Order: sequence, then C-alpha cells, then structure tokens
Amino acid sequence: MSESNGSGMGGGGKCPFATRRGFLAAAGGLIAAVGAGPNAEAATDTKTVAAAKPETIVEPFWGRHQGGIVTQAQKHTYFAAFDLTAKNRAEIVELLKTWTAAAAQMTQGKPARPIGSDLSVPAGDSADALDLSPARLTVTFGFGAGLFVKDGQDRYGLAAHRPAALVDMPRFNGDQLAQNLTGGDLSVQACADDPQVAFHAVRQLARLAYDVAQLRYTQTGFLPNSPEGTTSRNLMGFKDGTQTPPEKPTADNPLSRDDVVWVEAEGGDWMRDGSYLVFRRIRMALEHWDRTVVDFQEQVIGRRKYSGAPLGAEHEFDPLDLDATDKEGNPVIPDTAHVRLAAAASNDGAQIFRRGYAYNDGTNVTAERWPPWRQGLEYDAGLLFLSYQKDPRTGFIKIYENMAKLDMLNQYTTHVGSGLFACPGGPAEGEFIGQRLFEKA
Amino acid sequence: MSESNGSGMGGGGKCPFATRRGFLAAAGGLIAAVGAGPNAEAATDTKTVAAAKPETIVEPFWGRHQGGIVTQAQKHTYFAAFDLTAKNRAEIVELLKTWTAAAAQMTQGKPARPIGSDLSVPAGDSADALDLSPARLTVTFGFGAGLFVKDGQDRYGLAAHRPAALVDMPRFNGDQLAQNLTGGDLSVQACADDPQVAFHAVRQLARLAYDVAQLRYTQTGFLPNSPEGTTSRNLMGFKDGTQTPPEKPTADNPLSRDDVVWVEAEGGDWMRDGSYLVFRRIRMALEHWDRTVVDFQEQVIGRRKYSGAPLGAEHEFDPLDLDATDKEGNPVIPDTAHVRLAAAASNDGAQIFRRGYAYNDGTNVTAERWPPWRQGLEYDAGLLFLSYQKDPRTGFIKIYENMAKLDMLNQYTTHVGSGLFACPGGPAEGEFIGQRLFEKA
Repeated sequence: MSESNGSGMGGGGKCPFATRRGFLAAAGGLIAAVGAGPNAEAATDTKTVAAAKPETIVEPFWGRHQGGIVTQAQKHTYFAAFDLTAKNRAEIVELLKTWTAAAAQMTQGKPARPIGSDLSVPAGDSADALDLSPARLTVTFGFGAGLFVKDGQDRYGLAAHRPAALVDMPRFNGDQLAQNLTGGDLSVQACADDPQVAFHAVRQLARLAYDVAQLRYTQTGFLPNSPEGTTSRNLMGFKDGTQTPPEKPTADNPLSRDDVVWVEAEGGDWMRDGSYLVFRRIRMALEHWDRTVVDFQEQVIGRRKYSGAPLGAEHEFDPLDLDATDKEGNPVIPDTAHVRLAAAASNDGAQIFRRGYAYNDGTNVTAERWPPWRQGLEYDAGLLFLSYQKDPRTGFIKIYENMAKLDMLNQYTTHVGSGLFACPGGPAEGEFIGQRLFEKA
Repeated sequence: MSESNGSGMGGGGKCPFATRRGFLAAAGGLIAAVGAGPNAEAATDTKTVAAAKPETIVEPFWGRHQGGIVTQAQKHTYFAAFDLTAKNRAEIVELLKTWTAAAAQMTQGKPARPIGSDLSVPAGDSADALDLSPARLTVTFGFGAGLFVKDGQDRYGLAAHRPAALVDMPRFNGDQLAQNLTGGDLSVQACADDPQVAFHAVRQLARLAYDVAQLRYTQTGFLPNSPEGTTSRNLMGFKDGTQTPPEKPTADNPLSRDDVVWVEAEGGDWMRDGSYLVFRRIRMALEHWDRTVVDFQEQVIGRRKYSGAPLGAEHEFDPLDLDATDKEGNPVIPDTAHVRLAAAASNDGAQIFRRGYAYNDGTNVTAERWPPWRQGLEYDAGLLFLSYQKDPRTGFIKIYENMAKLDMLNQYTTHVGSGLFACPGGPAEGEFIGQRLFEKA
C-alpha cells in the first residue's frame, strides 16, 4: 500500500495551509487559532481539571513520568498493541523518535505531523480531530517482551536488557485468552475526554509505523460517570474503585499510589520512574448477572450493591473487616468474595493501581460456561482492565493468582485478552521514549 | 435460564428499598433523591439544551412523535435489532406494553422496573445507571417487516397491516451485508449523553423480552464533537452534515425537516406521525483513505476538506453549483462526487433526515477490496448511518440506488449491515407503542 493511492485528478485552486485547530490561509496570512492556545494549561490533578474548561486542558507530555498513568482518568480510551515487523534496531529507534514527536504534538491538540499545503500528496494527518480541543489527551507507550525476545530469538539485540519484571505472563486458572487479543511487542494507550481524539492519536501512530510495526489488537473503552465526589458503578451495577492506593500513605494504607506505581532504581536507568502495565480484557456475563439474586451478587462481591458498604458495615468507605464472623461463626465477608481476595491484607500487602475503563463491543455469539450451556448472542461488554505497578510479580500476578482460583466473581467474568508492558520513564523534552534503553544497548 | 440463578447463600440484614437515583431506606424512611427531580425539564431543541445543565434534562417520552428522531442528537447511542420468538400476538402486545412502561421510566432517569426491597430475588433493574442522570435518554421503537411476514408466514396475523412503505430492502450495488448485522423484527434505538445510560436502556428491554424476542445485533455509536456552532468532522476528516433539511422551508429548500420525516395519513392510523428508519452499518477503509492524496479525497466528496466548501465555492454553506464547469468544460463537482449524487437536485427532490453516529469497534481481520488485496487487521470503524423519512421508497432507496452505482466514495466504504423499520407515532400517555396497529388487527 503506497502513500499515493488514488489518482491526482482535479485539485489545484486555493491551497489552505492547515495545522490542527488553526488555519493559516497562505495567501492572506489570516490566523484563527482555536483550542490549544493561551487557555491551554498543564494539569494532572482533580482540582485543576474541575476548575478549567475541561476541553482546553493540555496534559503534559514531557517529564519524569509518562502521562496517562496517574493522570486523572479521561472519559475515553483507545488501547492498541502492535507487533514489530522492523528489520533492525535502527528502524525501531526511528519509529520511537517519530512516535514521540507525533504524540507530543497531538497532546497539545496539534496534528501528528503538519497537514501541509500540498494537496497532491496524502496529508500528514487524517484531520478528523482538526477542530477538536486537546481533550486532555495522553499517549502512554509500553514495551512488551517481544521487543526483547520473540520465539526465542533476540531479534534486535536487546535480550540482555529485558527487565526481570517483564516476565512471560503465567497462565491463570480460567484464562480463555484469544491470541488476537493477547500479547504485543509495543503498546499505546491513548486516553482523552473525546473518543475521536483518542482514536485519532492511535490512528496516526499506526500509520507512521507502516512497515515497522502493525496493529495486533485494539480496544475502545469509556469511563462510567458518577455524580461528583462519588464512586462510579461498573456494568455490574456495583461501585467500583472504592479501594485504591491513596495519594499519601494513611493509617489504613502504608503505601501511597506513587509507592505502588513507580519503578525506582531496580529497573535500570530507562525504567526508572516508569511502570508496568497489565492489560486484561474481561468479558462479563451480564445476562446471567442480571438474573442473579441480589443477595448472592453481594456475597460474590463482598459489598452491598446499592450503598457500596462492605458486608457487615454501614458505609462505602468503612474498612473491610475480614475477621468478622456471624452468629454461626461463618465469615461475614465470604472466603470467596472478590473484595477479600483482592485486598492487600489477603496478599501480603500487595497492591496495584487500577485505571480501568468499561468496554462495550455490542454483541456476538458465545458458548456459555454454565448450564444450560446455550450458544447464542451475548453482550461483548465488560472491563478493559488496565493496572499499573512497579513490579507485576509482586502486583497483579501475585494478587490474581489466588483470585483466579477462588474468586466467586469468576463465575460471571472471563479473561479473554491479556498483555504485559514495560512503560519507560517519561521522556525529557528532546528525548524519545525509551531512549536510555537504546543508548545502552 | 431462570430468574433465580445463583444460590441464596448469606443475605438478610438491612434491605435497602431502592429506585434508580433515589434510595428509600425501608427502616428509617430517609429519602435522598438525586438526578431527575425539580431540575428535570422537557427539552427537544438546541437552545434549551444549551441553557440547562445537560445531564438533568429529561426528553419527553409521551407525545405525538417518538423521541430520538428529531430530538437534538445525544452524544451516544446503543442500537439494537431483535428477532421475535413470540408464540402469538398476545405475547407481543404484552412485550410492547412492558417496553413502553420501562422506556417511559428510564427516560425520566428511573429504573426500568422498581429495584425492589427483596434481595432474595433478582433486582428489577441492573442498577448500573442507578446514580446516573437521565442524560437526555430517548428510546425509539421500530417494527421490521418480520413482524408482519417472515419467510412467507403471517406469524401473528398482521400481514394485512404491513404498510406499503415497509418494503423488502433491495440489494444495492456493492452491498456486502452480513446476515448477523442485517434485518430484525423490532428495533430499539437508545440515545443518551452518557454511553452507560444508553446501553442500560437496551439491556433492560432485552431482559424484559426474555422468551418473546431476542437480540439479533447491536451497535454502539458516538457523535463526533465540534466547536459550538460548527459542523463536526466524521472519521474521514470531512465536515459531515452540512446539508440537512431545515427546520422551516427556505429559498434553497422547499421541504422542512418535518416534511421529510413524518408520515401523514398514508400509513394508516398507527403510522401517522411516525417515520421510517433506515439503518446501515458503513465500514470505512480508513487506512486507504489516509493514504489518499487530499485532492482526490476532495474530488470524491465534492467539497474542500478543511473548509467544507463545495468545490468551486468559498464557504461551507455556499450552495452546491452542480452546473459549474471548468475551462475544459468538465464539471467542477465531478459526476461521481458524493455530494452531487446525494443532492436533492440529483434525485428529483428526494431528501432524508440523517441522524448518524460514528462507530468504532476496534480492529478485525478483513480482506481488502482493492490492490494489493491484503488480508489483515483493519479498523472496524465508520458510520452508524441512521436516517428517517416518511417513505423509504422515495427517500433512502431512491437516493442510494444511484449512489451505490456511481459514488466514488464507495471505493472507501462498505455497507455491511442494513435494516428498515417502521417507527410508529408516539404513544399518548397510557398507550403502548404501536397500540393502534394491534387494536385494528
């Protein structure tokens, strides 16, 4: 597929010289800037987002950490995994330079590349986000194991630099992973408050990767809304996200979010201030769930459905009392309850930082996993689980190994896709993403 | 699948009696109403929507017309087609009564059915929209040909009442329709400013249809944003929707939107004030489009990419001059240009009212339709085309028959799903949707 598909019929006339959200009529010199401009400001915390007109906010791209990890979650995501087809390491370096530059531009609400004034060539950007505001776009890059070793081959001379934490993911009990939703040599997580802006970002990067990397799978997601200051409900109708590492350590939780998320010296220079992303595509059997009695749903989760309070407690943010028993001596929060098995106290203190989205891909044909084993149309909807941690071995893998076996929620959920990616520290201005890995190698 | 899956283990304790967005603690009598309340107000026009806090707006459900047709387009949709499995007409009447009552509740931001205080049974509503505002939800019902005749059978004694306008859709040139994305005996178009609210609505209706109708296909969609007062760009990066029937006839257009959309006496009593919905799932070959020179894109569409102006004109809303020729005598707007072929002037004055959404289902494997005929991963994204008209024979079918053969845009688009549905007039309060059809039959 060449860059010059399509005949050059017609054309000519006036040539608008366009940059995303700003036109410069070549003839008249008229400048009309829209969107990212003097109003644009850096912001990562909740307060600033609430105060400013959200669409004008630009999330910082350059810096110690990549955006899109602890950034206040945007309303939409487009997640993509790529397979590398690069012939050599130089092509990858070139790709990462190009991607870094393009992502930096797009997070500011600009086109990936200048659109250009020459209408007789393909434009540098698809222009579907041309009039749209930055929408708090972040682009978060990750490196899968395949960058280092694939099918036993050290394709790019990087095998020696594979971090110990970038393990091959174990097979968990109940995994029903589809290969076309699993793995990937590179990941790109684009998040924005506008779904078209998030998709636009990945679409430009995929195009720029032509002949060097190709899409392996993609997934759209949206953030469930909730009234301000309340925890949102997931598609199962339960409040989701009550327990999350706090910004600062508390009496209840000795680890801050930063403690949980960021790699320190252990990952080598290029992973310092980075994080490991575990992606899981978790399909929910919503038809069955909706027909389950509420009592049982609450036993499955370990919380009250409507209030979000732990079983045996009154309020959503009451502590989980994992030792409480009822009159018969049975645990108030069942041994198989989701919240018990996920709790730090059940996992030697292990915690992860979840940054998940709901996904909704309509309906497709599925074979059911329980009686009456119907084969039919079901919702292909659920959780686009994205979690960040400083080491997956002591994070997601540690926690989920046990949950995969015991969590009653597994009756209603199926993990159908999975990925593990090392997300390097953020690039300093002028660096490209992962530069310190390639300089060393 | 029974309503009582799941064991009744545990449970008891306090039983919150919940309605969506309002809890009534049975013991204390505490009422905390959230969302639809005194702030809720009826609104269908742009001005009111802009002035009120959007999430609190309730779109009217009862009335002369169904909501979701000329209602200012909401940001998200979940569209569903159902196959009827009802054994007799009485079951369908019962379903439509249930659906009408549930939809009326949900558009007000309430649960489809009371959630109930008995936790030992499945709840009346899945509760994932419990805390969410009405989000301008509309639910628009349609009847496909299969309600009247299916495989030559008059299953429900309604064949004599099939409107002449509810034709079997012809096969158009280039159609690549998948059966699992096409047809359907009933349609439900849920639109809301919150994606979870739109999905929630269809999910409750599908559950209420158990044993009477089952999902045939579903499709999520989102509305591309644009700065206030401007036309939004579709995924091809072109402004889309410049030409639409005006609210009142103009010098350029003798037909108002109402003239185009609403059925009058010709459809029989039950279709009066209704409309016909044509659904098409139109996949875009975005990878190819992005690699096409801009000149050629503009010839394909017949408009300038960045300004939206018709070829040969200056501004987006300049009239299409279909007679203009260049120095060599060639038409300025090519004979095969999309805007020419879609124009009323090219179709004996035929017009439709488009109410489309973008769709984005990630990526899947497709065989390409042109050199180099690659089989690989491509975006499954494009246009969830929804159009309303008083008669599809003189609306969509009339217009598209010609476009399907000649429109250059067909090189980049593929129609993969299709449906035609008769959307009855709106129900008066206390009526059920389509009641006048069933009373007569």
